[in-house]
Amino acid sequence: MEKKIPYKIYLEEHEIPNKWYNVRADMTTKPAHLLNPISLKPLTAEELEPIFCKELIAQELDDDTRYVDIPEDVLKFYKMYRPSPLVRAYFLEKALDTPAKIYYKFEGNNTSGSHKLNSAIAQAYYAKKQGLKGVTTETGAGQWGTALSMACSYFGLDCQVFMVKCSYEQKPFRREVMRTYGAKVTPSPSNTTAIGRKILSEYPDTTGSLGCAISEAVEAAISQPGYRYELGSVLNQVLLHQTIIGLETQVALRKYHIKPDIIIGCAGGGSNLGGLASPFIGEMLRGEADYQVIAVEPASCPSFTRGRFAYDFCDTGMICPLAKMYTLGSQFIPSANHAGGLRFHGMSTIMSQLYHDGFFEARAVEQNSVFEAATLFARVEGTLPAPESSHAIRVAIDEALKCKESGEAKTIVFGLTGTGYFDLKAYEQYNDGKMQDVIPTDEQIASSLAKLPKI
Amino acid sequence: MEKKIPYKIYLEEHEIPNKWYNVRADMTTKPAHLLNPISLKPLTAEELEPIFCKELIAQELDDDTRYVDIPEDVLKFYKMYRPSPLVRAYFLEKALDTPAKIYYKFEGNNTSGSHKLNSAIAQAYYAKKQGLKGVTTETGAGQWGTALSMACSYFGLDCQVFMVKCSYEQKPFRREVMRTYGAKVTPSPSNTTAIGRKILSEYPDTTGSLGCAISEAVEAAISQPGYRYELGSVLNQVLLHQTIIGLETQVALRKYHIKPDIIIGCAGGGSNLGGLASPFIGEMLRGEADYQVIAVEPASCPSFTRGRFAYDFCDTGMICPLAKMYTLGSQFIPSANHAGGLRFHGMSTIMSQLYHDGFFEARAVEQNSVFEAATLFARVEGTLPAPESSHAIRVAIDEALKCKESGEAKTIVFGLTGTGYFDLKAYEQYNDGKMQDVIPTDEQIASSLAKLPKI
Repeated sequence: MEKKIPYKIYLEEHEIPNKWYNVRADMTTKPAHLLNPISLKPLTAEELEPIFCKELIAQELDDDTRYVDIPEDVLKFYKMYRPSPLVRAYFLEKALDTPAKIYYKFEGNNTSGSHKLNSAIAQAYYAKKQGLKGVTTETGAGQWGTALSMACSYFGLDCQVFMVKCSYEQKPFRREVMRTYGAKVTPSPSNTTAIGRKILSEYPDTTGSLGCAISEAVEAAISQPGYRYELGSVLNQVLLHQTIIGLETQVALRKYHIKPDIIIGCAGGGSNLGGLASPFIGEMLRGEADYQVIAVEPASCPSFTRGRFAYDFCDTGMICPLAKMYTLGSQFIPSANHAGGLRFHGMSTIMSQLYHDGFFEARAVEQNSVFEAATLFARVEGTLPAPESSHAIRVAIDEALKCKESGEAKTIVFGLTGTGYFDLKAYEQYNDGKMQDVIPTDEQIASSLAKLPKI
Repeated sequence: MEKKIPYKIYLEEHEIPNKWYNVRADMTTKPAHLLNPISLKPLTAEELEPIFCKELIAQELDDDTRYVDIPEDVLKFYKMYRPSPLVRAYFLEKALDTPAKIYYKFEGNNTSGSHKLNSAIAQAYYAKKQGLKGVTTETGAGQWGTALSMACSYFGLDCQVFMVKCSYEQKPFRREVMRTYGAKVTPSPSNTTAIGRKILSEYPDTTGSLGCAISEAVEAAISQPGYRYELGSVLNQVLLHQTIIGLETQVALRKYHIKPDIIIGCAGGGSNLGGLASPFIGEMLRGEADYQVIAVEPASCPSFTRGRFAYDFCDTGMICPLAKMYTLGSQFIPSANHAGGLRFHGMSTIMSQLYHDGFFEARAVEQNSVFEAATLFARVEGTLPAPESSHAIRVAIDEALKCKESGEAKTIVFGLTGTGYFDLKAYEQYNDGKMQDVIPTDEQIASSLAKLPKI
């Protein structure tokens, strides 16, 4: 007999996993390593040490260890906002009149408003353990910067955030959250770094870009003794930390004897997607189970569905390492989509290799249909979702409606990465019927891909 | 042996209380009834029927029924965001180095961001049950309007919100949340009502006030067939619905054999305070237990600590009913405090009578010390609190520090009513060191009290 499933499944504290899962250990074809942008040789730990914390570099390069102990201090911090609930979307199921059973893992119940805190606290911990004074990072809309500010505040680390200038000025709210957590927030480009001064002298009126903010943050880390740079997505280490999402989901599902059929996650840099899906894909790699895993990306930035699997620069400025990944080309500029977190031209090397090897499929969805799904979800499930997360909602609804057609009672699990409380300009545009989506033409993508480095 | 207390206590679904508690049933001296503002006689149900829903009027006037069944549909909706966690503030205790044990009941994990949803869903339910087409209300910063929009969306009711014009224009975010939930949001004063047109013709440049928005919402309810007006605070019915907070807290505490010494809530209109505290005060009234209950109000609007227990109008316009309550006078205008939800000149009649009878004490705290507490709390407990809720945090910290002095390990429970995600202008002012607090002088209060109606 099926156990009665509550609306929200909260694990007990002792049920929270105490190890992260490293899917690389189970992959037959390992993801390609990062290349030095000058020598084009695989990056060594030594080369990375001026930029990243030692233990994080070890995690970045480790293709073999299947389970990594979560440090005690990180586990303790997790208790502040974890376990996150696995929610049975009874209200959504009813609204859709579907036989499908829908669940979502909700990562938004913390002040950073998203899953970013899972990696921020781990990265801050290793910085503290290494005896550093502080860390630097960049942020666009501010989710990652907020998460890292919270984590640094907890460990008493200095946190320097370079925030893209237009966001700093036009979206002051997350800036103030970061300041409340004690972070130093600098609009980028700034005159506090050489690269910032150079950009300002060339383009005095620029409102900044993520690429520029990254350059400033890296320079600031290298030029101050006792500082390192930390990054909130794309990297293997970030995906590793984010597996707490999928691992908790597995424990909750097993507790109620639920076997999912479909796993859905939104895909930007790939770390949240991998965090949710890789523990399930691990079961597939080990031949223990089979799932339909779906990555959902914006039609305006379709790395998986229309990009190429190739070595490319991770940044627009072409100074960062190269990664073998699904990419639209480092010079690809996506249109002004509201899901800022999904506007990266490339994708995690791990998720790229798994996609290449056929372990999941990908779909690109348009912005208006995403906000239609987001609005329905908000109305029936109560939580106003982030635009990024709503990409997963869109496809979860699509799949549930297919079940309605076919009469199948599939079990769908999707990741709800965060809340949309700081994205209300986007909702306003949708409510006013003014939202547009600019899908790149084949020519645009071909032109961008033609500039890929020849490796 | 003491059971290990987790960081967050979540009740199981079957443990959620299914009745609200009506403290009036246990009060020896009942709170005074509302008076008709013209006849000065106690308001009858018949007089209230054009404005409020029938069953809500019955709840408003019911001094006898101790426990009121929570309707099934409301219980079902509660599962969307309840039970709310009772959090053991281990991190705060450590930061304060106090032997005190601190707990807080957190009501902010829903899109309305506060406890307001507890009453909104009940009020929407009774409107639906009565067969109404829709409801009207007013909102200032938007918490109550958001909550009612969510509730109406769930029941398919039309929701018309009159939002104070300056908030409508300067704080567009909650406006967009309401619109996303399908509410019609009108800046007040508007030309959609007679009173709005009158005010606009007299003061064409006015940015509106809560009093004016209330008048418009009431007029809109009366003048449209199938509509009623709903209010989110002060009323007995609202306090009744909010007792879910205190009742859940009691279940959680009992589950872990915890006996609190001190109960702390912030006080604006009194419904959240009463919702948390009245089930505990009920135990005191019945002679079953004793607690130190503390109401915390802003020093800029000190109804309990510097007001008078007297009949007064509930609104600035002096057209609404009179209530016997602690009041600063209906003409009292508090300074521009950031805790908008605590700026009401009066107080719930129930809580006023209980205060008069000595069942709790009250403290007034200044804004800067409130934000100091809020910032510490955000940093160590992770959640960025609403300015209103932070009044309770301030006094909880004060009491915990007293325990540090005395060495007593008291158990403190406070209500964390909501999050501060839409209050970042206030945090910005605090972060910039520009926050001020204007405490009314004795002369100001005396002058305002001199205008109390002579009853």
